[in-house]
Amino acid sequence: METKAIGGYFELEIPFGKPLHGGGNCIELNSGRNCLEYILRVKKYTKIYIPFYTCDAVLEPINKLDISFEFYDIDNNLEPIFNYNLIKDSEVFLYTNYFGIKDDFIKNKIQTISGNLVIDNAQAFFSKPIENVDTFYSPRKFVGVSDGGILYSNKRLQGNFKKDESHSRMSHLLKRIDLSAENGYSDFGENEASLEHQPIKQMSNLTKRILSGIDYEKIKEQRRSNFELLHQHLKTENLLKLELDMDSVPLVYPFRTKNADIKNKLHSDKIYCATYWPNVAEWCNEDTNSYSLAREIVALPIDQRYCKEEMNKILYKINN
Amino acid sequence: METKAIGGYFELEIPFGKPLHGGGNCIELNSGRNCLEYILRVKKYTKIYIPFYTCDAVLEPINKLDISFEFYDIDNNLEPIFNYNLIKDSEVFLYTNYFGIKDDFIKNKIQTISGNLVIDNAQAFFSKPIENVDTFYSPRKFVGVSDGGILYSNKRLQGNFKKDESHSRMSHLLKRIDLSAENGYSDFGENEASLEHQPIKQMSNLTKRILSGIDYEKIKEQRRSNFELLHQHLKTENLLKLELDMDSVPLVYPFRTKNADIKNKLHSDKIYCATYWPNVAEWCNEDTNSYSLAREIVALPIDQRYCKEEMNKILYKINN
Repeated sequence: METKAIGGYFELEIPFGKPLHGGGNCIELNSGRNCLEYILRVKKYTKIYIPFYTCDAVLEPINKLDISFEFYDIDNNLEPIFNYNLIKDSEVFLYTNYFGIKDDFIKNKIQTISGNLVIDNAQAFFSKPIENVDTFYSPRKFVGVSDGGILYSNKRLQGNFKKDESHSRMSHLLKRIDLSAENGYSDFGENEASLEHQPIKQMSNLTKRILSGIDYEKIKEQRRSNFELLHQHLKTENLLKLELDMDSVPLVYPFRTKNADIKNKLHSDKIYCATYWPNVAEWCNEDTNSYSLAREIVALPIDQRYCKEEMNKILYKINN
Repeated sequence: METKAIGGYFELEIPFGKPLHGGGNCIELNSGRNCLEYILRVKKYTKIYIPFYTCDAVLEPINKLDISFEFYDIDNNLEPIFNYNLIKDSEVFLYTNYFGIKDDFIKNKIQTISGNLVIDNAQAFFSKPIENVDTFYSPRKFVGVSDGGILYSNKRLQGNFKKDESHSRMSHLLKRIDLSAENGYSDFGENEASLEHQPIKQMSNLTKRILSGIDYEKIKEQRRSNFELLHQHLKTENLLKLELDMDSVPLVYPFRTKNADIKNKLHSDKIYCATYWPNVAEWCNEDTNSYSLAREIVALPIDQRYCKEEMNKILYKINN
């Protein structure tokens, strides 16, 4: 290893702490989709079953490796409508831990009934991996980093991967503080796009460092209490029946509603709800559950940046 | 004020905390030199006395405002060789809190004998301002921000200043973490140069936010203990007689030596010591103290990034 310099100009002030993920089976890469590529390559799968209701980034490694895939639909509990007996030895089933609230289903059900399994925890950064189940994460959905993917697997690919660099992908994270959310938005799009079609790389030093300086306990509490506050007021209206497990840390509050106006109304008040996922309507017919879920679930922000005040503002806007 | 957005992409993860400086007389600007400009303008001084032994950035506002100036020399204790009775009502005397170790002199001596006074605390970020003495700071000498100046004054300039933007001045701070000190060095030079000839602006949101998320108590302890460790081993050799006041937080350990090789020797081992200041040799004759001080003081790094291990490495390199 190269000697590190002492003295001279400073680096950005980021606290030193402990990363959320680690251990012998943890592999730090450059993106969630590249974690999936890693799994498909190391396990030499010939086919993957994926939900209609997921992010199209999942298709990137599948197409790249030219692996067959088959879509499945999910039910109103966000659980697969699928005959797991169909999965052959050389095939794998991908399940998404939707909104970070499907921990119980994963732990107590799917892992006991499915054969080869991959858990996509891109929406569940805080969920613990299950032993011997390939599991991947995408930290930038939960915290302010520009890239990075985390994979747990008991098998390793041969060869050394180049280290990713993040410094030129940081402008949206900086502009959001320095200027405003709106001013950094186009940079956000460009920086996200720069993650497409990248080879598997090691996670950058910058992303690693940021991830190791975060107070995760605080984030966990804030997300859970914001979620619970919205749930308390919206659960009767919410067409999605849900319950927050003891340890789950949600991505957003998924509010399923037939009221198509809510998202636009919130948007006009600068309350931005991500769409999960724009590609679903292109992938499946109107008669699938996935189609309806993608159209009807409004992903209300409940993350660590916000507290009671913002949650009440969101509730007010929904009800008025 | 504009409504802040809720939701959407993240901002950089920076903890929220308390800034070191604040209060009614505290004015947050874009650089130390612009704090000096502010003082010169608000107090309408016609002439300023400045040390030979200081940074040439001090001349920028003086030249800009076309104010007369006169240099003075300092003695071997870094204290002015000057007859303070010369200072007229419309004139001001600038003293630099060298290396952050002249607090005692400032508090107990110079402020009682000098007339109009400006304290340049660019090298003393942690030193408290003295009531009714115009005092300015430059945070980026102590912590990882790209710009900013802090001024304490009991008078305010009229008019609204534009807000500075820092997001495009961050690359060296990011590259130092992401790549290496060497890889960010040229960006550091460019970003520093971008602070030249700027109008007075308000401190940027990004710099404010970074400055409010720093654990200053930890920095204080680390800097002091590193300083004491070097001092313990170097004090007999050190031609600069010094003592660290109870509350002082030093910038560097100023090691005055006739051994002209030390700095280069350290440099070749990637131990980088800043030169305070390259311009001094151009400003004064070889027979001034300032000339010798600038040539002989090696500014050993003792900042918060380092601990015992690095200090011992520095000591080893000096002695071998």
